[in-house]
Amino acid sequence: MSDPAEHFILALSCPNRPGIVAAVSTFLFEKGCNILEAQQYDDQESGRFFTRIVFNVVQGQATIEAIRAGFAAIADTFSFTWTLRSKAEKRRVLLLASKFDHCLADLLYRWRIGEIPMEVTGIISNHPRETYAHLDFDGVPFHHLPVTKDSKMAQEAKIWEIFQSTNTELAVLARYMQVLSDDLSAKVSGKCINIHHSFLPGFKGAKPYHQAHARGVKLMGATAHYVTSDLDEGPIIEQDVERISHQDSADDMVRKGRDIERRVLARALSWHLQDRVLLAGGRTVVFRD
Amino acid sequence: MSDPAEHFILALSCPNRPGIVAAVSTFLFEKGCNILEAQQYDDQESGRFFTRIVFNVVQGQATIEAIRAGFAAIADTFSFTWTLRSKAEKRRVLLLASKFDHCLADLLYRWRIGEIPMEVTGIISNHPRETYAHLDFDGVPFHHLPVTKDSKMAQEAKIWEIFQSTNTELAVLARYMQVLSDDLSAKVSGKCINIHHSFLPGFKGAKPYHQAHARGVKLMGATAHYVTSDLDEGPIIEQDVERISHQDSADDMVRKGRDIERRVLARALSWHLQDRVLLAGGRTVVFRD
Amino acid sequence: MSDPAEHFILALSCPNRPGIVAAVSTFLFEKGCNILEAQQYDDQESGRFFTRIVFNVVQGQATIEAIRAGFAAIADTFSFTWTLRSKAEKRRVLLLASKFDHCLADLLYRWRIGEIPMEVTGIISNHPRETYAHLDFDGVPFHHLPVTKDSKMAQEAKIWEIFQSTNTELAVLARYMQVLSDDLSAKVSGKCINIHHSFLPGFKGAKPYHQAHARGVKLMGATAHYVTSDLDEGPIIEQDVERISHQDSADDMVRKGRDIERRVLARALSWHLQDRVLLAGGRTVVFRD
Amino acid sequence: MSDPAEHFILALSCPNRPGIVAAVSTFLFEKGCNILEAQQYDDQESGRFFTRIVFNVVQGQATIEAIRAGFAAIADTFSFTWTLRSKAEKRRVLLLASKFDHCLADLLYRWRIGEIPMEVTGIISNHPRETYAHLDFDGVPFHHLPVTKDSKMAQEAKIWEIFQSTNTELAVLARYMQVLSDDLSAKVSGKCINIHHSFLPGFKGAKPYHQAHARGVKLMGATAHYVTSDLDEGPIIEQDVERISHQDSADDMVRKGRDIERRVLARALSWHLQDRVLLAGGRTVVFRD
Repeated sequence: MSDPAEHFILALSCPNRPGIVAAVSTFLFEKGCNILEAQQYDDQESGRFFTRIVFNVVQGQATIEAIRAGFAAIADTFSFTWTLRSKAEKRRVLLLASKFDHCLADLLYRWRIGEIPMEVTGIISNHPRETYAHLDFDGVPFHHLPVTKDSKMAQEAKIWEIFQSTNTELAVLARYMQVLSDDLSAKVSGKCINIHHSFLPGFKGAKPYHQAHARGVKLMGATAHYVTSDLDEGPIIEQDVERISHQDSADDMVRKGRDIERRVLARALSWHLQDRVLLAGGRTVVFRD
Repeated sequence: MSDPAEHFILALSCPNRPGIVAAVSTFLFEKGCNILEAQQYDDQESGRFFTRIVFNVVQGQATIEAIRAGFAAIADTFSFTWTLRSKAEKRRVLLLASKFDHCLADLLYRWRIGEIPMEVTGIISNHPRETYAHLDFDGVPFHHLPVTKDSKMAQEAKIWEIFQSTNTELAVLARYMQVLSDDLSAKVSGKCINIHHSFLPGFKGAKPYHQAHARGVKLMGATAHYVTSDLDEGPIIEQDVERISHQDSADDMVRKGRDIERRVLARALSWHLQDRVLLAGGRTVVFRD
Repeated sequence: MSDPAEHFILALSCPNRPGIVAAVSTFLFEKGCNILEAQQYDDQESGRFFTRIVFNVVQGQATIEAIRAGFAAIADTFSFTWTLRSKAEKRRVLLLASKFDHCLADLLYRWRIGEIPMEVTGIISNHPRETYAHLDFDGVPFHHLPVTKDSKMAQEAKIWEIFQSTNTELAVLARYMQVLSDDLSAKVSGKCINIHHSFLPGFKGAKPYHQAHARGVKLMGATAHYVTSDLDEGPIIEQDVERISHQDSADDMVRKGRDIERRVLARALSWHLQDRVLLAGGRTVVFRD
Repeated sequence: MSDPAEHFILALSCPNRPGIVAAVSTFLFEKGCNILEAQQYDDQESGRFFTRIVFNVVQGQATIEAIRAGFAAIADTFSFTWTLRSKAEKRRVLLLASKFDHCLADLLYRWRIGEIPMEVTGIISNHPRETYAHLDFDGVPFHHLPVTKDSKMAQEAKIWEIFQSTNTELAVLARYMQVLSDDLSAKVSGKCINIHHSFLPGFKGAKPYHQAHARGVKLMGATAHYVTSDLDEGPIIEQDVERISHQDSADDMVRKGRDIERRVLARALSWHLQDRVLLAGGRTVVFRD
């Protein structure tokens, strides 16, 4: 029998039609499962249905394999795109950073205290290990992969090799200041989160704080999004802002931005790892905690 | 047959146990209903389950009466506290105000443009009609009920008489600056929303902005809550805040507070009228829009 | 002698150099003035200095005319761009609206209760008076100026004629849904505030809420700015945002946006009227209250 | 001659009367100083005047000692409470923590990258060094001072001895979970900042997140304040909040609170170290950056 203390996360989307909730909830009930959390969303525009259900097994002998097998039949009927995972399963995440390490340090801290449940498969930087002399990587392999215009293809090949050989499920660009090539972007599509230091779609590209300062905006922000080959145009997962004034120079914005960036990226990563983020075309459905 | 354009709102709470969602969703499916929105919450502490479901009838002949009758059986089985309403049904609301009319004017505006779907059954004030000379009450009956220490019981009896005779379902204290007696509070329990001009539980009672100024807080707020006989202690529906500084005098806070009060009260009222607010002991479950 | 209860607002900018504050504050002290509020900003980038000083006359016989005359000499020395006004002086403001009247209704309400100190010189709309049947214009002249592609030039000529003949100092586009021509934009440069229903520079132009919905942003906003001939590119005075989610349709955003728009526009207008907004190239210095 | 690159911070308060700004700015001008930033506040209620001025010496031979000496005469005339410091001077700060190290780790990170300019004189904890195994203290002395009811007096004597012997200017209770005695509170009055994990004055004392959860508030917060012998009643320096919902358990609030606590404490500490915080009775004047 399953341990009632083990929680499972079912996340799915499908074309909307009557009976989906009835079919899924009846199936879970018959397998002896109890729903602990559920959120759903019917997108009237696209006609798609999205749901995320957390459940445990409270009666009977059903293993997760049996539930998964039984569920596959329903999934076929309704054309589900779906995942089913134990909440305890830690997903494998590769972190990429450059010189500024505020996001990297923050993610490592949250990981260490158990706030972000993940297995860190490696840390990649175009800067050497001594850049992070004060950070305790706690045994996580570090890869110094410097990059120049000429070496970019080779360097990205190495990144991709590490991604694959470590069974990485998600890459996080934690202020990794290199633009990924179209080729690598395509390979990690849906499996790579970036933090951009502006409130997108405003101020795409380089030096967004300087752009924002020049425009004289009264709030500044940061955006976590999935990487696509279209620079800073991928589906947005999370954004946040803070109020600024004419007094704030571009340097002040860099300083204030660190706080916004790290909390936006941490939220986006947490939600992704908990299967709270579902893709809906170029947008995301986010079942927030 | 029902008109698919008519939407129904089912809101319920009950002791949690496996099978609730399966039973409800299967029933709705079998009656030819399609779920358009659904939110649910399992309160692990109290062991209660809460849900709000919006649906329409897309197949068959089921009328709302038939659905309601059929649903009663399930409700019995699971000990539901429940309501089922047409979304088009406008609930009957009584507005109470005093000298300051920013909340009253705001609610009337939102009502007029259709943002808040309600039938206004009357406007009661302890100040005369000319206090609101510039407000168009649009035919809504106005009751001037002045109040003194000695006349309070009689005045409240009159309020209660108007509440009952107009089939009012909800009273809104839109900056009505009289404290209701325990007796009237008990009568309107769960049917009366107040806006208090502080971020509760800070600064209960009189002159909260002056209290907040004296304490030197850096954010000020407002709180919409259900009225209970325990002053400013009722279940909180919505709160919001704005940043202030040492520069803000109590008068500045009064001015800035108007904006917070009116948006907090309007949200609380809208959510109540859409059955988005469910009571959970001294707290509320709010399925926000 | 001046009445100490009368407050004056001095606002100025100039090339920065040592001695400005000493010269201004010594002059005011010698004229028997007491500084009640003062804010200043030294823009290190442009090398310009900005200040706003509120004072009253507490000693001696100095009239505001004498102070103004004496101050002109200092202004020359330091090349001030400056204004000096009695705080009690109400500036003359022309309101322009279209079909949606939430900003118009809000500004009129704030004006009536004395929150926004202004003289409303007229209300212009491309829709007829009956569109605002429930709004009390309180004697303010209303001008119905319908507009078509062909009549635009003539209609704008009429707007400009009203602006001039009423000695209007500021025009407010309170969701006036017509783009001003380059010609009229130039004429009202620095004297016209618009509210745009997006967080600029994102989503310029038409239907910003629909653009924002399509992009899937997680916060929505509004922007008040001075009108220039460059559409939605004028100096930003104030912005604000609210959190949204995948659940919010473009219609929900229209509804939620009303609250953001009206408070952003009201703040920008209040600050302008209190000489709190100084132009700094394409940006603004805003000495907030 | 002074180096123009060296900036000085003058912060003062005094009974308000005409001529203060003139006297100060004229003095600075005559000494060859240029004002780079200035903020002031006239508290109409208490009749006190507050200002903070940043300047450098651009002409002549004036050393900071000469300026200080000359300024003392003006200070006498106007009864200033004042400080004058080089911006480059790093103040000496003692950090106290308990088991949870999110604030400690955050302050150390900001210190390391130069965001918070201070000299850390020591880290005191009632938990042993291995509690912070992953934190690099970078040579800062660590003091393990366990505390029991019986040893509290002795432990506090040791804290005070460290405070004095290290010439500490400010103690920061970075989630140090012991209530200071009245005696120690008095000794560090105005020289000790605490972070309380609620939006004060709501939820003073122990387990504020559990209190907030029980009350069902819709926003949660944190407060940084000066320590006084009156628990959680000291002058507030900074507060911030985040929205929560019925879904958030007390444990969720603990998690979300970490982000609020650390940014509120970091801001309060930075502002204190930059002489941006002036005491005004039980309130603070904060000239924010």
